[in-house]
Amino acid sequence: MNQSDLLNYPGSHRVYEQGKLHPEVKVAFREIVQSDTVLPNGETHSNSPIRVYDCSGPWGDENYQGTIEEGLPPMRADWIARRGDVEEVCRDGRVWMQAKPGRGITQRAYAKHGIITPEMEYVAIRENLGREQTFRAIYDKYPNEKSRPDYVQHELDKFTQEMPRPSELEAIEGFGPNRLEARENLSYQHPSRKSGANMPTFFTSEYVRDEIAAGRALIPVNINHPECEPMIIGRNFLVKINANIGNSSLESTMAKEVEKLRWAVHWGADTVMDLSTGKDIHMTREWILRNSPVPIGTVPIYQALEKVNGRVADLNWDVFRDTLIEQAQQGVDYVTIHAGLLLRFVNFTARRMSGIVSRGGSIMAKWCMIHEQENFLYVHWDEICAILATYDVAVSIGDGLRPGSIADANDFPQLAELEVQGELTMRAWKYGVQVMNEGPGHVPLHLIKENMSKQLAWCFEAPFYTLGPLVTDIAPGYDHITGAIGGAMIAQQGCSMLCYVTRKEHLGLPDKEDVREAVVTYKLAAHAADLAKGHPSAQLRDNALSKARFEFRWDDQFNLSLDPYKAKEYHDKTLPHANAKKAHFCSMCGPDFCAMRLSQDIRNRDEKNNNLI
Amino acid sequence: MNQSDLLNYPGSHRVYEQGKLHPEVKVAFREIVQSDTVLPNGETHSNSPIRVYDCSGPWGDENYQGTIEEGLPPMRADWIARRGDVEEVCRDGRVWMQAKPGRGITQRAYAKHGIITPEMEYVAIRENLGREQTFRAIYDKYPNEKSRPDYVQHELDKFTQEMPRPSELEAIEGFGPNRLEARENLSYQHPSRKSGANMPTFFTSEYVRDEIAAGRALIPVNINHPECEPMIIGRNFLVKINANIGNSSLESTMAKEVEKLRWAVHWGADTVMDLSTGKDIHMTREWILRNSPVPIGTVPIYQALEKVNGRVADLNWDVFRDTLIEQAQQGVDYVTIHAGLLLRFVNFTARRMSGIVSRGGSIMAKWCMIHEQENFLYVHWDEICAILATYDVAVSIGDGLRPGSIADANDFPQLAELEVQGELTMRAWKYGVQVMNEGPGHVPLHLIKENMSKQLAWCFEAPFYTLGPLVTDIAPGYDHITGAIGGAMIAQQGCSMLCYVTRKEHLGLPDKEDVREAVVTYKLAAHAADLAKGHPSAQLRDNALSKARFEFRWDDQFNLSLDPYKAKEYHDKTLPHANAKKAHFCSMCGPDFCAMRLSQDIRNRDEKNNNLI
Repeated sequence: MNQSDLLNYPGSHRVYEQGKLHPEVKVAFREIVQSDTVLPNGETHSNSPIRVYDCSGPWGDENYQGTIEEGLPPMRADWIARRGDVEEVCRDGRVWMQAKPGRGITQRAYAKHGIITPEMEYVAIRENLGREQTFRAIYDKYPNEKSRPDYVQHELDKFTQEMPRPSELEAIEGFGPNRLEARENLSYQHPSRKSGANMPTFFTSEYVRDEIAAGRALIPVNINHPECEPMIIGRNFLVKINANIGNSSLESTMAKEVEKLRWAVHWGADTVMDLSTGKDIHMTREWILRNSPVPIGTVPIYQALEKVNGRVADLNWDVFRDTLIEQAQQGVDYVTIHAGLLLRFVNFTARRMSGIVSRGGSIMAKWCMIHEQENFLYVHWDEICAILATYDVAVSIGDGLRPGSIADANDFPQLAELEVQGELTMRAWKYGVQVMNEGPGHVPLHLIKENMSKQLAWCFEAPFYTLGPLVTDIAPGYDHITGAIGGAMIAQQGCSMLCYVTRKEHLGLPDKEDVREAVVTYKLAAHAADLAKGHPSAQLRDNALSKARFEFRWDDQFNLSLDPYKAKEYHDKTLPHANAKKAHFCSMCGPDFCAMRLSQDIRNRDEKNNNLI
Repeated sequence: MNQSDLLNYPGSHRVYEQGKLHPEVKVAFREIVQSDTVLPNGETHSNSPIRVYDCSGPWGDENYQGTIEEGLPPMRADWIARRGDVEEVCRDGRVWMQAKPGRGITQRAYAKHGIITPEMEYVAIRENLGREQTFRAIYDKYPNEKSRPDYVQHELDKFTQEMPRPSELEAIEGFGPNRLEARENLSYQHPSRKSGANMPTFFTSEYVRDEIAAGRALIPVNINHPECEPMIIGRNFLVKINANIGNSSLESTMAKEVEKLRWAVHWGADTVMDLSTGKDIHMTREWILRNSPVPIGTVPIYQALEKVNGRVADLNWDVFRDTLIEQAQQGVDYVTIHAGLLLRFVNFTARRMSGIVSRGGSIMAKWCMIHEQENFLYVHWDEICAILATYDVAVSIGDGLRPGSIADANDFPQLAELEVQGELTMRAWKYGVQVMNEGPGHVPLHLIKENMSKQLAWCFEAPFYTLGPLVTDIAPGYDHITGAIGGAMIAQQGCSMLCYVTRKEHLGLPDKEDVREAVVTYKLAAHAADLAKGHPSAQLRDNALSKARFEFRWDDQFNLSLDPYKAKEYHDKTLPHANAKKAHFCSMCGPDFCAMRLSQDIRNRDEKNNNLI
């Protein structure tokens, strides 16, 4: 199988759900179709298709015909224009949109004014994962509480825990008063099943707006990136993951970067950071932006440094400002800015095990040392925020002093910078800029909680966006896993987005297989946290897959998994014959020892006994 | 590179540390040699070798010449014979050792009588990982507190937190009164660095004995498996991992199983379970036992079922008892027995998402249903314990009703069985049998803690031994990772041993690469938990690797990692030239953007400034 075959998901097709407030909103999902369950008596019953979150944009639509030379259709162009608060500017052969003077055009500004934008409705629908349909199916199938299997009951319990207003529910077709009544009779709630997160049962556009207004969430969507499908980053929503791409001076070409982008979003990257440092940074980014259905993040200081030929001493505010404006006008959705790294912190890193491991952080630290001046990104923070607000570029306040080894975790320089990140957050919010904070790094398991709780407290609940954290230093070659362990844990505690780490971390540049492995690994870590946080519909997919597994619907099991091709490939290695996909046993135990089969026999017996009564 | 090359660790050699109480005890470690640090002024200083825990037995000794046909030398044969409480029996052409009538010959029995066996001293030395030497090195290098880098100070703080008695310390060469005084002046203790675990600073033979007597730990060493090197399973020691091997009716041969065993212990499996279900179970096990330096576990019901030709209905106490005795006399170190699965629990599994997924569990459940009788393993528990005590076979009380999907986690059947496991634990202890309890399974992150705390409370702090837990169902092909995430978390909370899950879980039979990937993945998860629990010397290896990384000692970085060959292979993919191993940058950022190098420049500058003062 060649790699382009992998760009399809088997047993899946694209579906869209339309907005109600904004009918122009059409949210893309991937729907996985399931085969029927065959009961021992030969009876069959159908299994509902499962809708899953889909980052792949138009490329994931089997009817889409576009090429990467044309770029994706500018879905949001109308939404942006219709608001009447931006203007088109042409200068030096370039064209861009910017806020009209005095107008607040960020999603935060709208939210603060109580406005629900199409972007907000888009993410509200997106986060629900088609739940309405699923609960309708459950009620239809198990009208009587007593007949419901425990796992169904469990789903319903969660549903009733935070009941939407009845009027809202009735608006959902099929949820009449009778069903509401039935739901009120439910009582069982396993006490330990409660999670700590403040997750609503149902995501409404109002809820999205209020979370953005409170600064607890952001939708990174530059007005100059109309190809971008809105997505939300915040701890009361699905945990998101970021994949890094970008050429370095050692490798890569432009077309390869677009290919990497497409590959990353296919496997489920919610945002992509372009960390290019080589030649042709501007043009590479142009190709990426025009072809990206997900928000693109950058670290502008890299390009600024290229402009001064790699001489850190020659960096200055002017060249940085021009670079930032260039990227903002081009359409970058969020930028990492290492403004929290202050001159007085730098000396403290000399006694560290691993000094400074952040690229941006070490550039700024070196600049501060050379000039014996305060970090110019900190000094010019207000001007930076004014620029970002003009294009609705979100800021990801960098953690230039993040620990690069277990020994340095939660030390003074790291926490000192975090405190400054909090100050910068509050100041950026005043300009209407959407904000998140970057976090470590290398942190042992028992110190992760402190990172999360201090970030929430010191940065006023702004979303946290962490790299890993990696929970040990001794596993180079396996650092996607050390990072996924820390990532799952910090996400459970409230981290909103995880930056992936590939197995090549610390060693080399990731190839496509490394990116696939890393994206899927972080998807599963993020999903584990979604389950733990009590995201209302996250578990539907687990349940569907487990039911398929239990019923030996092998193809459904593959199709429902995060990486269907790998699941099938591993199965085929032991049992390559096509009829093994229908076998009522698997290779691990062989036909006589199959636990699943024995236990199905028990269930069948139980059903027979019940029928006799 | 062919796979037999992988059976060496580069830059490493075998060292032994002798017992004091029992001079016949010689504990094997692997010592990783490091190259010198080269300072910018050309000065060099040496880096101490790092000792690591070594599961590979004589095979890891570069001077060992034995073949798998001969089997390993019976290291413990003398220790066992000298105690004078066992007798040799020959019957039907077989020879075995058993307790003399009325004698308690289990490690638990000895511990209860205050006896420190060679096995106990062995594990005490083994758990310390050569710490004495390391601290001596630190004191020699940084006699003045002010000169100590933060990470060194951190190690010393932990050391002083629970000070050994001065007399003990003075017995360690080089730790005179002066040094003690210096240590008492240390005051800095980062509050968040404290971990919850009750981990001592220094493992003594007395401590090992007391933990075993309390039932909080066990040393699974059958008197008929003298080839086995003692290792301890308990939550106040290093977290251990188990690898499963075994032929099924679909695949595998005997020699292949021995090869798998050797492969698994090379990568770091602390124990190995032989889960064979096919033909020649007895002979396969013989080969495995005679060649295993680690404890071998089995699930005797599998072989019992083979004896009745796979007909569950025909199983009975007699055939099980005979099988158990056969295995105990052969040398199996611990056995999984699903005695906690009671008849009255079985019906509750019919409403589950995934029914019963444990092989042993489904066999016993089916037997109970067919005969409408109580589980004969529960009924005959006292007789089972008496057999186990005769050979010092430890029991791992199985969790036949463990959840097989997120939906079933922590449900009634699972927790009901756990309660019975507690009852059985207490009863086994009365016979002097060493006990651990098996645990789930599929459990979402937020329900893991309940598993651990209920197990500790209901099973009287007996060691917990879990499969994963897997924190989501949707990642077949990546279940080594879903299991490692849950494993790291439950181990941090007190789980003593993790059973690995390979990426083929749910899909097929693992091959050698799958086993390698899984063992290393679980090693890193276990190590992450060791760090979090505050194991006194676990972090030394992280520190050494991070220092090597910071100083661009590439080969040291590879050699110190859990899988040196993979680390080097990944590095070579981007920078294949030999001189890149000495490059003061790496492939990720290229020479101009190297954060590590920039940050070394800062440190060098700092040192220069200090010298000027």
